[in-house]
Amino acid sequence: MSEFELDPRLAGDSVALADIGAIHVRAMVNAPWPWLVLIPCHPEAVELFDLPAALSAELWSLAYALGPILKREFGADKLNYGALGNVVSQLHLHVIARQVGDPGWPSPVWGRNEPELTPESAADRLLRLQHCLRLL
Amino acid sequence: MSEFELDPRLAGDSVALADIGAIHVRAMVNAPWPWLVLIPCHPEAVELFDLPAALSAELWSLAYALGPILKREFGADKLNYGALGNVVSQLHLHVIARQVGDPGWPSPVWGRNEPELTPESAADRLLRLQHCLRLL
Repeated sequence: MSEFELDPRLAGDSVALADIGAIHVRAMVNAPWPWLVLIPCHPEAVELFDLPAALSAELWSLAYALGPILKREFGADKLNYGALGNVVSQLHLHVIARQVGDPGWPSPVWGRNEPELTPESAADRLLRLQHCLRLL
Repeated sequence: MSEFELDPRLAGDSVALADIGAIHVRAMVNAPWPWLVLIPCHPEAVELFDLPAALSAELWSLAYALGPILKREFGADKLNYGALGNVVSQLHLHVIARQVGDPGWPSPVWGRNEPELTPESAADRLLRLQHCLRLL
């Protein structure tokens, strides 16, 4: 996977949290929702169905395992999973913990302009997401 | 699966196209994008990770297989996959074929108010989606 390079827009919107097997895990910053982005380290994957079967299984295994942890740790009511890629074509899977009454509920998170988090809130959010990864 | 009952809101927004194994396949009507909804017939699944492993594998196998067919048949540039469920909790997976320059591109499809299709266009769309399923 030496040819894998993270798309600069993904890099700019999010911060690296971990590499779990072949999945690069990032957190969206300045979003009012706990929001992870899972990027399978495959140099050419654009669509989910481009992934080799083993890497696809690894992606969903991680995405599913994170679900109950995110729900519990953030008191979330619903997980939102999305693989869109209309703007950034490099394959990435959004995993977002939603809560009834959160900003924009029940609309999807994309394309909204919510107020930025304070630096303290953003830092706290990141630490809590890191903690979730340690619970895997 | 005798206890499985389709959520009435899903039933109202979409029409049944097929049952493929344990996956009920519906088409959203009056949307300007080719848009399928895949519903695993499991009476209690709300989150993707609620699904038994075999049913989850069946869901993604179908969702992945449909991808290249939808792209080719509709000249789509990108597939959008989403499992949100903030409004309708019954687990359902959206599979939407997007084209550069389509209504709302590159935003996600949810929450938009696009003009309704003419009855002729809606009927044509349904026939083409049915054709895609026959190509599986």
